[in-house]
Order: sequence, then structure tokens, then C-alpha cells
Amino acid sequence: MNVSMNVEDYMHELGARARAAARRVARATGAQRSKALAAVAAALEADREAIRRANEIDLEVGRGAGLAAPLLDRLQLDDGAIERMIEGLKQVNALPDPVGALSDLEYRPSGIQVGRMRVPLGVIGIIYESRPNVTVDAAALCLKSGNATILRGGSEAIESNRAIAASVRRGLADSALGEDAVQLVTTTDRAAVGHLVRMERYVDVIVPRGGKGLIERISAEARVPVIKHLDGNCHVYVDEAADAAMAVAIIVNSKCQRYGVCNAMETLLVHAARAQDILPQADARLAEEGVEIRGCIRTCEILPRAVPASESDFFEEFLAPILAVKVVEDLDEAIAHINHYGSAHTDAIVTADYARARRFLSEVDSSSVMVNASTRFADGFEYGLGAEIGISTDKLHARGPVGLEGLTTRKFVVLGDGQIR
Amino acid sequence: MNVSMNVEDYMHELGARARAAARRVARATGAQRSKALAAVAAALEADREAIRRANEIDLEVGRGAGLAAPLLDRLQLDDGAIERMIEGLKQVNALPDPVGALSDLEYRPSGIQVGRMRVPLGVIGIIYESRPNVTVDAAALCLKSGNATILRGGSEAIESNRAIAASVRRGLADSALGEDAVQLVTTTDRAAVGHLVRMERYVDVIVPRGGKGLIERISAEARVPVIKHLDGNCHVYVDEAADAAMAVAIIVNSKCQRYGVCNAMETLLVHAARAQDILPQADARLAEEGVEIRGCIRTCEILPRAVPASESDFFEEFLAPILAVKVVEDLDEAIAHINHYGSAHTDAIVTADYARARRFLSEVDSSSVMVNASTRFADGFEYGLGAEIGISTDKLHARGPVGLEGLTTRKFVVLGDGQIR
Repeated sequence: MNVSMNVEDYMHELGARARAAARRVARATGAQRSKALAAVAAALEADREAIRRANEIDLEVGRGAGLAAPLLDRLQLDDGAIERMIEGLKQVNALPDPVGALSDLEYRPSGIQVGRMRVPLGVIGIIYESRPNVTVDAAALCLKSGNATILRGGSEAIESNRAIAASVRRGLADSALGEDAVQLVTTTDRAAVGHLVRMERYVDVIVPRGGKGLIERISAEARVPVIKHLDGNCHVYVDEAADAAMAVAIIVNSKCQRYGVCNAMETLLVHAARAQDILPQADARLAEEGVEIRGCIRTCEILPRAVPASESDFFEEFLAPILAVKVVEDLDEAIAHINHYGSAHTDAIVTADYARARRFLSEVDSSSVMVNASTRFADGFEYGLGAEIGISTDKLHARGPVGLEGLTTRKFVVLGDGQIR
Repeated sequence: MNVSMNVEDYMHELGARARAAARRVARATGAQRSKALAAVAAALEADREAIRRANEIDLEVGRGAGLAAPLLDRLQLDDGAIERMIEGLKQVNALPDPVGALSDLEYRPSGIQVGRMRVPLGVIGIIYESRPNVTVDAAALCLKSGNATILRGGSEAIESNRAIAASVRRGLADSALGEDAVQLVTTTDRAAVGHLVRMERYVDVIVPRGGKGLIERISAEARVPVIKHLDGNCHVYVDEAADAAMAVAIIVNSKCQRYGVCNAMETLLVHAARAQDILPQADARLAEEGVEIRGCIRTCEILPRAVPASESDFFEEFLAPILAVKVVEDLDEAIAHINHYGSAHTDAIVTADYARARRFLSEVDSSSVMVNASTRFADGFEYGLGAEIGISTDKLHARGPVGLEGLTTRKFVVLGDGQIR
């Protein structure tokens, strides 16, 4: 950033460059985009040492500032992390090109043919917290889907991000896309984010990657559309007709496979007729894993170690070895509970009953609804999207895991031979 | 509206009712929704006289307030208009049910099956200006797509809208959907709109229907996502390889078939090698139609009656018998002009050249791109969507004409037999 420039001018210049670059990226062929991504991978490989050194500076500053150990961990780019970053880029590059596909081309009574062409969104702004590898992940996904991107990472990773972005841009410089296809906001001034999310002329969509606080702040300020990823308060409902062993396996996996993730189960609902049978079996395993149980009255009667749940526990995304448990009368109560207390992220039913499975799928209003599977499957890779820029909790545009397709849109194409109305 | 309530409480009550109703509408089968719409049609038929009388009151108040003739015209519901309104409702009801379609169900290596189910958005807020028939159109589209709706019409049509909404609700009262599936904001207090567009808890999307001023005001205030329909500054580009007769027919139809519509041509671009030949032919017809020409220097040299265009003319949506005309050097200049001055609505090329047609389709960044067809075809009915709630100038979610599909979203469905990660 030119020191004589104010932040607003600086951001508008980035925006104008991104808009111009977006036209070049969109115009490039899939082969050209692919070649550019390969050049970026080569540049990153050549620049490993510089990236590691820059990361050392961030780590040192972080240690000096008393950054907590888990944050330092997320910040660190050791050789393995750099390797995985480059490997991820190559994997994204190997995905099918989503741009330009023309579908549904049909003749209309007027004689025109109408279809829809998948096209890039244009300029995507990514705002993320400490993990510097996002700089490469996000750039790769945006470029593969034909978009230019403006990246704004956390200030604690600024040196790492600068080194990575410089390397990415070196890789792009000789390609058909040009280096401005990926730009990093190099000022740590917080006002930069405010401008980024309000530059509707230059930015088509904002994807924040980080905690709920970051996302709520950005959504409140933004004029550019935001693909939001808020909380995952996920449920497993064990129906009357559940297989006990399957139910226990899904409960334990949904809760314990990883605690700090958005697709972990936070509330367990059990049909009243199965509570006596299922809850003690599940609890034996959950106790082994050290999971605290916060239960409704009936749960506490069945499980002596459970503590009484408050109403707010049922709204909570614990992201921890804590589980809210409620005994429900029937499927209706389960669905009503999920639609009221849940966050519309991912919810599963365990049942052998066809009609109730079908009702659960259609009536639970969440981005992923599951029958007889762990909530932990809600993930772009598991779903076969090939990669994931995030999991959208919005309803419009992209809902659930967002892959390359979510970074594109469709325009109408009309082919005629002189038709008029 | 209960007089003792303030506007905020009133709107929140409408919102809570709409949210509850949305669950019922979504849960209903397609057959139940269809039956409910038929009952609404019957109610409107029975209430024609009451609706006409209410409309008379609005017209009288409008005349007294000195409303301009075109506005009074749009406000009027004569027998023919009521008939068309009911006919339109029946046509929407005859469209295929968009809700519940399950697609792309595929097995993943983990053994789960992942697919996507088309589901309603939930609660749709429609804010519209004077045409009271929108009350029925919008309600029909929202109900058919499985959504509840909150309608807010213009104050000059309040009596008509009240009568229509009362009739719609009478039709719904005995159906599986219940009368709250359609609610009208019955206060004319402007603060109601401000609450409506910020009630994220209760409203999933806002669709404004009206002038650019209304839409910009709403977008600036909204926290709920808005499907925007801003201006249509549409272009026809006559390429070097155009057939002259086809070019003239498309120019005249795109400009003159109707002036006040968003898909009318506002700027004509002509390749320099064809300007001498095409412009005089087109102008002979445009002059007959009384269309004023605002041209670039070269246009003014060729067409003596043309007046010099200012730069702002190329940004303008005239909605009138005025046409901006520019002679361009080649396809690159045409595409650059459209992407810079246009509004990304609808743009057409007239050409016999395969490669340039292909480039125009992929490089013009508009919601509809056309080869050898009039821009006037950009329309939900012409495209085969069956109906249209508006034409989106946004890129996310819905781009171009928005039919029933644009009022739905897709959630992920996962079918397993006990899979865990």
C-alpha cells in the first residue's frame, strides 16, 4: 500500500484492479486457468523457504504478544503444512472446470432456443482469521471457478499471507490471468474490511471464514452479498423404530469424532418409547469419552450422571464435550424442536420406518437432512463437491457445503435466427 | 391492525404468524396447495363486486389527490382486469409443482447417498407499488412454490388490496394452508416497510416490485436478502457479419415494441464497417416511430437528424422513444462498452459469424445474452418459466427472469444405513 494513500482510496484501487482482472479470468479458457494454477503451485514450491521465514516472524510476534497455544498452532506453517497447501491447490486444479457449461437449451414456441450458462460471479472477497493456508485455498477455488479475488487475512498472519500472496502473484504474472487475479489487502487497518464489504461496484460476493463474531460483524456492515456460515447446532433424533446399535454408533460418532466442528451433534433427541433402552447404552460410551450430559427431566431420571439442562442449552453450539439431551413424545415434537432450537445446519434421524424417514427429510428445514448417517458427513469433500469454501447457513444461492458451483452463477442464453416479438 | 399496537409489534406479530404458516404451507402436499389455490380463485370470483367497489374508493381518493392519469390507469381494476387476475392465478396453479424434487442422488465412497431436494424458501415479503393485481399474482406464486407471504402494497391501492387480501384469505381459511399463509400489511405507516425488511427471524427474502427508487431504498435498509430488479439498460450490437434486414427488424422490435419496459433496447452499437449501410435503414423505421436518436460523432455524421449524445446517455435507461447510438470498431469495443455502460440485464448481438456469436455469449456479463433475437424476449413467459415474479439483476441466487424455481432453494439429503466417519 502506497503510504500517501488513504485506506478508502487504496481499497478502491484494489477493487478496480480486481474488476479488470475478473474480466480476464472469466475470458480465459479452462486450459489457461489450469495452466495458471500449475504455475502458482510451482511458484509456491520455489518459495517454500521464504514463506517459512515469513511465518517465523508472525509466530515470534504472536509469542511476544502472548497468543494462546491453539492460535499459535493454527498460525504455524511447518513443512508439512506448506506441502498440504500446495497439494490442496493441485487437487482443486484437477477438479472439472465448472465454467461455461450450457444446460437446459430448449426450443420455445416463438422459435428461440433458451438455455442457461454457468459463469463466474466476478470478484470474490474472502475475509479470514488466522490460518494462512486459506490464502492459497481460497485463491485456488476462486481462480478455478473463473473469479478474481481480494483476500483479507488476520493481522497476526500478515507476514505469512504477504509471502504467500507474493508467491501466488509471481505464479500468475506470466499467465493469461495476470497477477491482479489474486490481491491481498496488505494494510492491517480495520477500516479496510468496512470498505471491502461495501464496494458493490467492485465486489460481487463476500465469503467470511472465521468465528460467528466475525461473520455477524461483517453481515451487519455489508452491502455486498455475504455467503454466511453461522452456527451448527446439529441434532440426532432417535426414532421409535431405530436399531439400537446403529443409533449408539451414530450418536457417538456425531458427537465425539471431533468436538470443535460445525457438523458435530449438539443436541440428542430420543423417542420416549426408546429412552430407557437407548440412553443408558449411549451414555456408557459418552461417559467413556468424557462427554457431559445436560438433560431434560426424563433424561435426568434415566441417567443419574446427567445435569439438568436449561432452555438456553438447547440453543447452544457447544463445540465441546457437552451434549444436550431431550426425550420427545413423537416425530412431530422432534421436528418442531429442531426447527425451533436448531440452526438449520445438519440434522439426522435414526429410524427403520419409511414414512417417518420421509417426513423428517421433507419437514426439517435444514441445509442437510440425513437418515441413518452421522452428522459429521456434512462436508464438501464427503458430498463429492471436491472442495469446499465453507458451509452456508443461508437459504439463498448456496445452502450447505459450498464448492466451486457456489462460486458461479447461471445466465440465460438465447439463440435465435432473427426472432422478434 | 389493532389500534393499541405500535407498528413494530404489529409487524413482528405478522412475522411470527407467517413463520408458523410457512411450516404448514411447506408441509402440505402439492395436491393440497393446488386445492387451496383453486379455493382462492373461487373466493375471488365470488368477491368480484366487493373488490370493484373497494377499487372505486381508491380511484376516487386518487382523483381527489390529483394522481396522474397513468397511475390511475395502473390502479384501476375493471371487470377485465379482475378476470385476468383470476385467470393468472389459475395459470400459476396449473404449473408443475416445484417443491420436493430430489435430484443428483449419488453414492459416495463412504456408502452414503447424497442428493439435493428442492424446498420452499419459507416466508417471502413482497413490496410493490400501485398495481393491486400484484396482490393476487404474488400470493399465487408464493403459495405454489410452498412459501408463506407478507404483502405490502402501495397506500394509494390500500382499499383494493384489503378487499383482495380478505378474499384470498377467505379462500385459504378452510384449506390445509390456513389463512395466515397470505397476510397483507394493513397499515400505511411507512415504518412498516423498515421493520419488514429487517425481520430476519421471520422473513427469508424480500422481493420489491416497483421503480428503481423503491428498490434502492429497500436494499439500503434491508437485512433480509433482497431479490433486486434494478435497471435494464439493454444493448443490441450489430456485428460486421450481420444480415441487414434481420438487424433492422431486431433494432426496431427491441426499441419500439414497448418503451416503458426493462427489456427494451436503450443503446444501439453498430460495427464501423456496417454503419453506413445499417444506420440509415434502421433510422428510416425509427424516425417513423418517432424515436429520438442521440448519437456518437460518427452516428451524427451519418444520420443528420441525430443529436450528439453525452456520456451519461450511454448509462441511461430511457424507458422512452429515445435511443443512444454508437459506432464501434470491433467486437472487443462492443463487449467493453456493454460491460462498462450496461446494467447487466439483457444484451443481444446480430451476426452470422459463429466465433463472434460464441464470444459475445460468454464475455458479455449480463443476465440474458442473445444471438439474433430481440431483447424483448427476456421474460419469464417467453423463457418458459410459466410465470415471473420479477427479473433479477443480482448475480447470486436468481439471475434474470425469476419464476417459481427462484422462490425455492435446495437442501442436501443424505441417505445412509448406519454410516459413521
